[in-house]
Amino acid sequence: MTHSAVPPARHAVTRDDVARYAGVSSAVVSYVVNGGPRPVAASTALRVRQAIKVLGYRPNASARALRTGTTRLLGLVVPEIGNPLFAELAVAIEESAAQRGYDVMLTNSEGDPDRERRQVSNLVARQVDGVILTTMRTGSDVALLPLDGVPTVLLNRFDAVPGFDTVGVEAEAGAFLGTAHLIEHGHERIALVIGGGPAGHIEARERGWTAATRRAGLDDGPIARDDFSRAGGHRAALRLFGSPHPPSAAFVSSDMQAVGVLRALDELGLRVPQDVALVSFDGTQESEYTLPRLTVVKQPVQEMAAAAVERVLAIGADSSNEHSLHAPRLVIGGSCGCLGPAASSEVRPALG
Amino acid sequence: MTHSAVPPARHAVTRDDVARYAGVSSAVVSYVVNGGPRPVAASTALRVRQAIKVLGYRPNASARALRTGTTRLLGLVVPEIGNPLFAELAVAIEESAAQRGYDVMLTNSEGDPDRERRQVSNLVARQVDGVILTTMRTGSDVALLPLDGVPTVLLNRFDAVPGFDTVGVEAEAGAFLGTAHLIEHGHERIALVIGGGPAGHIEARERGWTAATRRAGLDDGPIARDDFSRAGGHRAALRLFGSPHPPSAAFVSSDMQAVGVLRALDELGLRVPQDVALVSFDGTQESEYTLPRLTVVKQPVQEMAAAAVERVLAIGADSSNEHSLHAPRLVIGGSCGCLGPAASSEVRPALG
Repeated sequence: MTHSAVPPARHAVTRDDVARYAGVSSAVVSYVVNGGPRPVAASTALRVRQAIKVLGYRPNASARALRTGTTRLLGLVVPEIGNPLFAELAVAIEESAAQRGYDVMLTNSEGDPDRERRQVSNLVARQVDGVILTTMRTGSDVALLPLDGVPTVLLNRFDAVPGFDTVGVEAEAGAFLGTAHLIEHGHERIALVIGGGPAGHIEARERGWTAATRRAGLDDGPIARDDFSRAGGHRAALRLFGSPHPPSAAFVSSDMQAVGVLRALDELGLRVPQDVALVSFDGTQESEYTLPRLTVVKQPVQEMAAAAVERVLAIGADSSNEHSLHAPRLVIGGSCGCLGPAASSEVRPALG
Repeated sequence: MTHSAVPPARHAVTRDDVARYAGVSSAVVSYVVNGGPRPVAASTALRVRQAIKVLGYRPNASARALRTGTTRLLGLVVPEIGNPLFAELAVAIEESAAQRGYDVMLTNSEGDPDRERRQVSNLVARQVDGVILTTMRTGSDVALLPLDGVPTVLLNRFDAVPGFDTVGVEAEAGAFLGTAHLIEHGHERIALVIGGGPAGHIEARERGWTAATRRAGLDDGPIARDDFSRAGGHRAALRLFGSPHPPSAAFVSSDMQAVGVLRALDELGLRVPQDVALVSFDGTQESEYTLPRLTVVKQPVQEMAAAAVERVLAIGADSSNEHSLHAPRLVIGGSCGCLGPAASSEVRPALG
């Protein structure tokens, strides 16, 4: 921690504290915080920002809100708003924030690291009271973002990131749960559909899938890696199930991919769940309306959103980092086999 | 126009112009625009804001961006980010904005008018250079939002709104196109699935559906009104197709509703397109992955987004309001009957 050299403040850090630490006037601190109205030399601004970070200074949001007539504000950065999981997380964060009197401004990076960096700058310059960040960056890359000491929580992280507070789902346990469910249905060769990921890194969902098959004494099934998108799932499934000895089941690491898998199986003339059983990870609204409805390992979206909002507002009062993981649960649909033959047009479901 | 008493400015309006008009110092104008660092009496701030509005003053975004290290910024307000149409519009607006050197900050009102009002206040106070607003408000209600003279374009408007620039799709022509396509397939009783809407107001998609059936000399089909959501479409279709004399086809006013209609038909044991033919309005990515794939009247999302961004950046240079409507197109999927029997697991499509 870079903060360790500074004794914890006994009182709320004020603008005057920052000015004293940086060796500038209180007005200059204000210009830096407010982005004006007077220009500040870059080297001076840097010194002020460092002082803000070291001292943990937060401009008084309530006073500012009274002055400007606006409410308190959180910033949310998502990598892909077209992914229903992130849209649902955004809505849940807005609801949790509203319950505490905060509004949310959202930016969508579309996986572009330069755009994400600018968006973080924009949010910080626009004086958000905290940032909730769902990013594809690895831990060390997150530290490169210009967060300037604004309280930040990383959401949708499966693993702890040193120096940051994180909130995520127990992804390994979830993948284990979903794969074990397919094993209970008697499947002995279960594929994994998942994203590419950085070389050498084995992601939590892959670890959970492997652990479940090995615990059951089964050989590892085939892995199809492709984009976390409907098109990616479609391509992955055409490769997997168009092969000479296709698996009889698959654990799919995201709902978007699972939607593409369903289309590919339909094109290949394979029925779900009679010919191929599926369990998907996420449990978004879209997964409730596929034909058949997907059996899912459902992420606790509301619970994670509430935890992220609570945490980002607590940072500053409490200087140690917290890493909270939340348990997913299995929700039975028509794709695993529990409800009998597919709820297709020709065949009526035996149950539910 | 309240602006008519003021001669059009021959030069770019400056902060000094605003100060002179409001009878305050230039610094006070800056405090109001920047929300600080000094407090300004409410009555003075109101006078400054009125001067800004009357004169059409825009703070110099580029200079501010250089000073604060942030880029130029547009605000986007959507009513429901979980609707894939709005998510796709948001992504397209971000792309169009990025091409012009702007980033986008997004807020999601979830249909709550109070939240929407606060979000507009937040965006204006945070000095966005323009606002693109997709709102459920009627024309006269839009004027109540605290836009404070910030250039604003209303996106996703089917009809002109006096006093505002608008961008939208030719919804009536689109509904006509989709319904006429079902008539070409020989259907004589075509339902409409649509949202509730304000009493007494007949929406553009309903007008287009009516016009197509009447031109063909057919009786009006039944109308099922419910929420613009998957659940709303599901409920509407259970009522429509669970009735004693169900229609043989439906024009569905949104993809989200159509996804719910597909589930309801599956539950009722009705096949698409053999028993019921469907054409949906929107053409989002989700509609490309339903089983069968939906035949859609596709909204020109990229074109509308580009028009909205171009327009919001042009306001100020040009004081008259523009209303631009963009043409949708029919995209054939498996739900209308053109491709033969359903691309279901048991039956292979005859074509495509």
